Amino acid sequence: MLFRQLFEPETSTYTYLIADETTKEAVLVDSVIEMVERDLQLIQELGLTLRFCLETHIHADHVTGAGKLRELTGCLGVVPENANVDCADRFIKDGEILEIGDIKIKAIFTPGHTNVDMSFLVNNQMILSGDALFIRGCGRTDFQSGNSGQLYDAITQKLFTLPDETLVYPGHDYRGHTVSTIGEEKRLNPRFVGRDRQNFIEFMGSLNLPNPKKLMEALPANQQCGKVTV
Amino acid sequence: MLFRQLFEPETSTYTYLIADETTKEAVLVDSVIEMVERDLQLIQELGLTLRFCLETHIHADHVTGAGKLRELTGCLGVVPENANVDCADRFIKDGEILEIGDIKIKAIFTPGHTNVDMSFLVNNQMILSGDALFIRGCGRTDFQSGNSGQLYDAITQKLFTLPDETLVYPGHDYRGHTVSTIGEEKRLNPRFVGRDRQNFIEFMGSLNLPNPKKLMEALPANQQCGKVTV
Repeated sequence: MLFRQLFEPETSTYTYLIADETTKEAVLVDSVIEMVERDLQLIQELGLTLRFCLETHIHADHVTGAGKLRELTGCLGVVPENANVDCADRFIKDGEILEIGDIKIKAIFTPGHTNVDMSFLVNNQMILSGDALFIRGCGRTDFQSGNSGQLYDAITQKLFTLPDETLVYPGHDYRGHTVSTIGEEKRLNPRFVGRDRQNFIEFMGSLNLPNPKKLMEALPANQQCGKVTV
Repeated sequence: MLFRQLFEPETSTYTYLIADETTKEAVLVDSVIEMVERDLQLIQELGLTLRFCLETHIHADHVTGAGKLRELTGCLGVVPENANVDCADRFIKDGEILEIGDIKIKAIFTPGHTNVDMSFLVNNQMILSGDALFIRGCGRTDFQSGNSGQLYDAITQKLFTLPDETLVYPGHDYRGHTVSTIGEEKRLNPRFVGRDRQNFIEFMGSLNLPNPKKLMEALPANQQCGKVTV
């Protein structure tokens, strides 16, 4: 399996390129519109065929590159079931497996940051945890149908029951970390260690975070699969 | 082996934490002074003992965290042989192997960015290529005893003769790439594909790059092993 973590510095977003090295089929997870050229160049250089642009959720902080990549490559845009978009080529639901050659990408419904978030378990080895679980943190829950109780349940009952050695690749990191493990997050994530559900809900409710800078642009664009209408 | 790539966004520097999971001994390669708190927290959280702070070269774009980490942890500061510093605990020379538990880190002399650069081959699987080889690029050669001909020789005769599947982890990346392979760089690095030594020297000589912002602060501080005297 070819696996590449790619970073977009303005919104500290991680995009993931996953490909079967035999069939050369690829999927790009959580692409960023400003980085489409870079990502496409890498895909071409490696001789890959982009089959899917997959989203963990409908992002509020950056515009997806999926629309542009769909136009340029003919890939299919895949978003979580019940996402409020009418332009996706395919919806993926809890437990469903997306196959890329021999690679199995299993969707795990982990709502709470928004009401549709999926995490993606790749070959039972790594979890792309989107904006549900971050390294020593978690996604915010204060807009976009966020729900702290749901997020607590999703992380503690679903992600934290994966094997300890499962690698955690988040949708963002703001401190320069690139990867963690489930065991590490269970033991060290300050949002969860020593907090019960109620305490977590209260803590998340007290954060008073500013809105993402690109909220007004990103959400409507992502509901159009990344189509920016200027 | 525990392996963590860590990013510092201001100078786009990668720091690498490598540890033996049995003995819990660790080495930190190319640390950045502003990130010492983050790195130390990670080291402590993982229950590691920092044995060495290792440098690929004497950096001109950021101040090493080695001095601070040496004070805080008692680790040894290790720099390449012939580096113009008088405060290192240990110098490492071409071909020498630094052992961290069962992990073998072999120094490979790859000068040209400066006159002392080492790349580090970890367990024959990955090369920390410092500021010699970047992903689709290479280090600049226009100051600090840089020498384009030397860099061409080091990369084409030493790094490019490693097995194709060797993972390349660079000292910087300015486009959000995190990793490549020797095979990929041999085939795709535009600084080397189709260029002979003379052509490379001419190309590097024509770049006209601005000085790194922190040059005046970083170089003297790093010659004092990261001691910032304000």
